[in-house]
Amino acid sequence: MIWDKDIECLTHEEMQELQLKRLQDVVTRAFNEVPYYHERYSQAEVYPEDIQTLDDIEKLPFTTKTDLRASYPFGLFAVPQKEIVEIHTSSGTTGKPTVSGYTKEDLDIWGEVVARGLTMMGVGENDIIQNTHGYGLFTGGFGVHYGGQKIGATVIPISTGQTLRQIELMQDFNTSMLIFTPSYGLHLAEVMKEKGVDPKDLNLKVIGFGSEAWTDEMREKIEEKFGVPAYNIYGLTEVIGPGVAMECPEQNGLHIYEDHFYPEIIDPKTHKQLPEGKNGELVLTALTRVGMPLIRFRTKDITNIRHETCGCGRTLVKMDKISGRTDDMLKIKGVSVFPSQIEKALLSIKGVEPHYQIILTRPDILDEIEIKVEASPEIFFDNVKELIGIRDKLAQAIHDEIGLRVNVTLVEPKTIDRVESGKAKRVIDNRGK
Amino acid sequence: MIWDKDIECLTHEEMQELQLKRLQDVVTRAFNEVPYYHERYSQAEVYPEDIQTLDDIEKLPFTTKTDLRASYPFGLFAVPQKEIVEIHTSSGTTGKPTVSGYTKEDLDIWGEVVARGLTMMGVGENDIIQNTHGYGLFTGGFGVHYGGQKIGATVIPISTGQTLRQIELMQDFNTSMLIFTPSYGLHLAEVMKEKGVDPKDLNLKVIGFGSEAWTDEMREKIEEKFGVPAYNIYGLTEVIGPGVAMECPEQNGLHIYEDHFYPEIIDPKTHKQLPEGKNGELVLTALTRVGMPLIRFRTKDITNIRHETCGCGRTLVKMDKISGRTDDMLKIKGVSVFPSQIEKALLSIKGVEPHYQIILTRPDILDEIEIKVEASPEIFFDNVKELIGIRDKLAQAIHDEIGLRVNVTLVEPKTIDRVESGKAKRVIDNRGK
Repeated sequence: MIWDKDIECLTHEEMQELQLKRLQDVVTRAFNEVPYYHERYSQAEVYPEDIQTLDDIEKLPFTTKTDLRASYPFGLFAVPQKEIVEIHTSSGTTGKPTVSGYTKEDLDIWGEVVARGLTMMGVGENDIIQNTHGYGLFTGGFGVHYGGQKIGATVIPISTGQTLRQIELMQDFNTSMLIFTPSYGLHLAEVMKEKGVDPKDLNLKVIGFGSEAWTDEMREKIEEKFGVPAYNIYGLTEVIGPGVAMECPEQNGLHIYEDHFYPEIIDPKTHKQLPEGKNGELVLTALTRVGMPLIRFRTKDITNIRHETCGCGRTLVKMDKISGRTDDMLKIKGVSVFPSQIEKALLSIKGVEPHYQIILTRPDILDEIEIKVEASPEIFFDNVKELIGIRDKLAQAIHDEIGLRVNVTLVEPKTIDRVESGKAKRVIDNRGK
Repeated sequence: MIWDKDIECLTHEEMQELQLKRLQDVVTRAFNEVPYYHERYSQAEVYPEDIQTLDDIEKLPFTTKTDLRASYPFGLFAVPQKEIVEIHTSSGTTGKPTVSGYTKEDLDIWGEVVARGLTMMGVGENDIIQNTHGYGLFTGGFGVHYGGQKIGATVIPISTGQTLRQIELMQDFNTSMLIFTPSYGLHLAEVMKEKGVDPKDLNLKVIGFGSEAWTDEMREKIEEKFGVPAYNIYGLTEVIGPGVAMECPEQNGLHIYEDHFYPEIIDPKTHKQLPEGKNGELVLTALTRVGMPLIRFRTKDITNIRHETCGCGRTLVKMDKISGRTDDMLKIKGVSVFPSQIEKALLSIKGVEPHYQIILTRPDILDEIEIKVEASPEIFFDNVKELIGIRDKLAQAIHDEIGLRVNVTLVEPKTIDRVESGKAKRVIDNRGK
């Protein structure tokens, strides 16, 4: 089923026409209403009337997280505060968080795009969505909440943690869709196993994932453990929250709701747009945000985009899942490495569990990489020879992927910290300490 | 300002006419759609057509928390699950929680009643509501969230905890309304003081309280610390959530949104209705709930109701703040004591802080009561003689209130546990251990 066929199946030309009109509109509003954009555009000598084609977007300066921080708290709002009905912030581990302000129209758009995505995943008014994302300043919980309400599904806003309660409600309330971060999903599966609850005996039908980068291999592990398909949900608080792009049952990319969020892929160094299919940094423009127009926002997320008519029937532009972030790229012995590459290699080898840590040290002058990964219980306790074989295979697979030698340590099952909520800490960088 | 003058200022007769119509409607729906009611009413030989006047409500059996638990999880729903869009549960510390299911109409009613209450407290589209209630299965966060959205205020859904972050956002976002439980509010005030932040320097204008019983004396302490008026918000997850009744600026009772929630006061022993002004157990009937009709629900909360035209102009029936619960009444040496009575006595004496615990023991065959309360810092460290005087005064004030002798211990400031979220634990009953 398609939630809004008129939009989700537009021809590329029709979509571009809509996008251009909306881009002109948002640039005009931003220039007139937001001092930040007025100054930046004036300095760059680019004005709303210069946007004659979609390609003209390249004339506009980027907006970065640093710009958002400098405008803290409400400097990017385009409407009086009384029109803002909800505020979220990014997690902002250091310094001030970035702020996202929503008018009623913005909340409606947010619910609408998530409604499209949930429908795409086969979820409807008969479904019961157990939402383990946190509610609060974080946008995770609310995106699915508003989208679920819009499609008339039953939302259980249980939020993070309370894993035993989660399992009880899955059983008692016939949960048909689970929403979680990959790392929390793994933890949940593990606790279910300990408690003798087989996910396959439940009413579960589909999983929606978000808030964390993941590899295909991680998805396979999760689908195997829960016995249902798992689909990706992408978004950023700054742009709107989860729901910028969601994955269809084809499972080879996410549809970007490009009538609201215009994507570009740029070379993070030259800042030039890259051709379709080429990996680079995703830049997003919120075409319809009323409260806080965000134009050419550098997401730091690495992916590529392609226009095609998808097997699911939608024409909405597709992006690959995020393969890393420009700022989570590790420089190790001068080589660029993404944690996702290591995850991919790790999970290609049988006999290990998807719980791992990447520990970087610099004992002397050279970087060293240690990968701690949990062996599967049946192997760890029974078979030393096999353990050595697995360790060597892992080291080889990682070397093949990133071109560097690593030390692999197979650790006892359940000895790597689990997360009860949010994102797992995969990289521990002790170099320079 | 009055959000819905047509309803909030109806004459008593007009309101009764509306209530009767709605009562007949909900009883009919419940009888026809919910097996629980069908059975109970059939057993009691009372049928929808027997409800000819509002007084006929007394013919209907009560619904208790035990009944709700027995119908766990969805036994009280009057619509197919696909029409339910949101589910909340009570905290349910023991056994299964009680479940509350909402259709879109129910969520709209919930937002509507909270909108009325916020408007009554002087809050509107220009206000910034910092909502420290938890979001999740608990209804606390969502009630204010939906009401705040409805009036067009800016809601900051920060949720519980993160006290330093709360203070930072109050400063940075110009929070004009704080929502908290009394115990968290006290903790917040204390941390602000430690950090040298004077609430009076902020943009704060009003406080909304909920989820915990409180005394006038506790309110005075909080108003004094924050320098703004604090109003009571009452509600129960089973009935709808916070928003069943809210307090107006007159501060002498809460207006019950009686067009949606029909109140009765009964004698908890005889189960007979009590006359206006008499304290008893509040029984509520949700007149308009679509998803889950709740008829004659015994709240266990003790209060009284009175019809009058309020100083604020509203005619909606008023209830006193909850003075206790039928199940938090303590039997001490055969005497019925409510913790709120002890709080009231404690806070009537100068020189102590609103942080206390009531500890019950039975060293031999007789109950003993120890009251631990924090002395004010300026007294605790400087003036032993004064301390003794205060202790004696406290013991006397409590004796005057409850008629029992208690041992009062004045403890060092900040030595009684603070709550970072939810409700304070005031009573420790070690009798029989």
